[in-house]
Amino acid sequence: MKQLRIPGPTPCPEAVLQAVAQPMINHRGPQFQALMERVTTRLKEFFNTKNDLYVLTGSGTGGMETAVVNHLSPGDKVLAITNGYFGERFAGIAEAFGAQVVRLEFPWGEAAQPQALKAALEKDREIKAVVVVHNETSTGLTNPLRGLAQVVRASDRLLIVDAVSSLGALELPMDEWGVDVLVTGSQKGWMVPPGLAMIAVSPRAWQYHTQARMPRYYWDLSKARRFLEKGQTPWTPAISIFYGLDSALEMMAREGQANIIARHRRVADLVRGRVKSLGLKLFPDEKFASNTVTCIRAPEGVEVKGMLKYLREEEGITLAGGQGMLEGKTFRIGHLGWVDEKDGEVVMKGVEKALARAGYVRAG
Amino acid sequence: MKQLRIPGPTPCPEAVLQAVAQPMINHRGPQFQALMERVTTRLKEFFNTKNDLYVLTGSGTGGMETAVVNHLSPGDKVLAITNGYFGERFAGIAEAFGAQVVRLEFPWGEAAQPQALKAALEKDREIKAVVVVHNETSTGLTNPLRGLAQVVRASDRLLIVDAVSSLGALELPMDEWGVDVLVTGSQKGWMVPPGLAMIAVSPRAWQYHTQARMPRYYWDLSKARRFLEKGQTPWTPAISIFYGLDSALEMMAREGQANIIARHRRVADLVRGRVKSLGLKLFPDEKFASNTVTCIRAPEGVEVKGMLKYLREEEGITLAGGQGMLEGKTFRIGHLGWVDEKDGEVVMKGVEKALARAGYVRAG
Repeated sequence: MKQLRIPGPTPCPEAVLQAVAQPMINHRGPQFQALMERVTTRLKEFFNTKNDLYVLTGSGTGGMETAVVNHLSPGDKVLAITNGYFGERFAGIAEAFGAQVVRLEFPWGEAAQPQALKAALEKDREIKAVVVVHNETSTGLTNPLRGLAQVVRASDRLLIVDAVSSLGALELPMDEWGVDVLVTGSQKGWMVPPGLAMIAVSPRAWQYHTQARMPRYYWDLSKARRFLEKGQTPWTPAISIFYGLDSALEMMAREGQANIIARHRRVADLVRGRVKSLGLKLFPDEKFASNTVTCIRAPEGVEVKGMLKYLREEEGITLAGGQGMLEGKTFRIGHLGWVDEKDGEVVMKGVEKALARAGYVRAG
Repeated sequence: MKQLRIPGPTPCPEAVLQAVAQPMINHRGPQFQALMERVTTRLKEFFNTKNDLYVLTGSGTGGMETAVVNHLSPGDKVLAITNGYFGERFAGIAEAFGAQVVRLEFPWGEAAQPQALKAALEKDREIKAVVVVHNETSTGLTNPLRGLAQVVRASDRLLIVDAVSSLGALELPMDEWGVDVLVTGSQKGWMVPPGLAMIAVSPRAWQYHTQARMPRYYWDLSKARRFLEKGQTPWTPAISIFYGLDSALEMMAREGQANIIARHRRVADLVRGRVKSLGLKLFPDEKFASNTVTCIRAPEGVEVKGMLKYLREEEGITLAGGQGMLEGKTFRIGHLGWVDEKDGEVVMKGVEKALARAGYVRAG
């Protein structure tokens, strides 16, 4: 079997793919309404939230844009925590819509520090909101969101979180941790094809929304709210992907969230164990290594592109290269969504073979 | 067989649904690149254009927003031709992003007049662009785009066209008619589930783009252009819907564009013929009646909602009610995409039955 092990899109279970293939229905009719209500209710359980939740037709980045433009005004001061490619993207979106972005930068591969955030927020009282990426797909690092959220809550700013590659697979209880705006995407921990972004917003976020003057139309959550009352979306939704999400959420509910999170931890532990025993080095600080994606430093002398090509063409294993400034320097293994230990074994055996073929010899 | 005959989403052929169910692939790999190139090349043939063309993950309305925000700046004067719900939407998008919108209004159901457009453009030289809906799904009317485009070309403004419910099914040769920005959506004439918007832009549109200061990130065509060079999209695309589009375009290429357009004309003629023989009245001016959707005035005493419910539950035929201010006053039959005369027959027999049941007696 082919192994698609990039950090999204992830493989989809056969039942999900079959669900995706169902015929079209009227998106303004009773069948879609029932589908929408089922999906929304289940998603709230996995978000661990009582907040309003919306499913948008678009990529995860569309969800990130939604999170920004619905809660801020041009000129607003926003603190963007950056320690990777997606943190930079979040900052870039806020800037594109006229926010005054203050960056709190950490080196790629190092975790964002709550104490540094506290100092930054105390220093500049004008900062209205904090945007942060929970799981940095580019570096394979999970930021300590619980601690960061505590700081934001204590200082009474708005907390906007990109959980595109974490939610569903990693622990992130929205209400308990006090996140105001939480965004994810269908093609990651949810085992569903790309095409939907999901966003939940707290009452505090709605207060910001009423003041927020960034221009918006397609991503306007006021419109989404009005239509959700009828079990609809403002614009024609990606019905096929809704079908898939419905099917996947049923599977996930059967497995249970705690079991899903534990499974991701086990697979990640296995992968990291093999990385070590091969004498390879993780890119991120191991203490914060992600349980959904492992980012590995390419050993000296190993050309990443060629290694990935060999794995893809000869072993049927698709991995991802380095992202942004890490291109050529790292490679990444996605282990999220539909994945278990056996998949981890197969992938790491492939990696071992590919490295040997590239002349890699374990040091020491 | 169930008949989903709303003006989109339209039914999808079995081959398209099977294509949609294919497993995920790397959206940054060679397989997706080949898929993207195939789809883009075929779409250009159906757009009848040599212009750049992009496939975006989102609804048709996302495509409309893309068409606006990439070519205009806040404060720009834009003429919006409005004679229906979607014309109003286009104007609303431009306003949301700060354009100064001048409306050229025609009554719902009446066609936009090229002479009136000419006068409006001559009167106000500050108008930089014209936005218009080719096929008004809400009223079942096709605007005389060829004539409107001639006027815009002669006056050297930018012409932005919503062809969401027309392209693929109605004649609209982009380059020959001189359209600058042309938008459509996967769930209409293309027989594909919703989730993708397609947009083509002329060299003149790119010139506008370089000056355009409306904020944009997710919908930014500069980013789409940069990634298309690698056969990629900036954000993770709705791969499943790409599969479906690829399959549908192959079917469409086999049938041939002229044949597809003729088929839509035949089905529409059949439906309109039955409407007349039942003594019903079209909502729009018959001369401009659309070949993709027929909008019918509800006869006095017939309650639309109840009639549609009966059709859906007892006859397996799903039609659409009136949109916007036409709610309760009209009902609509979609006949676009995967449709032939037999479908038209079945639907009109159902309508006849439903009307009789509602106590409708042909006048005269």
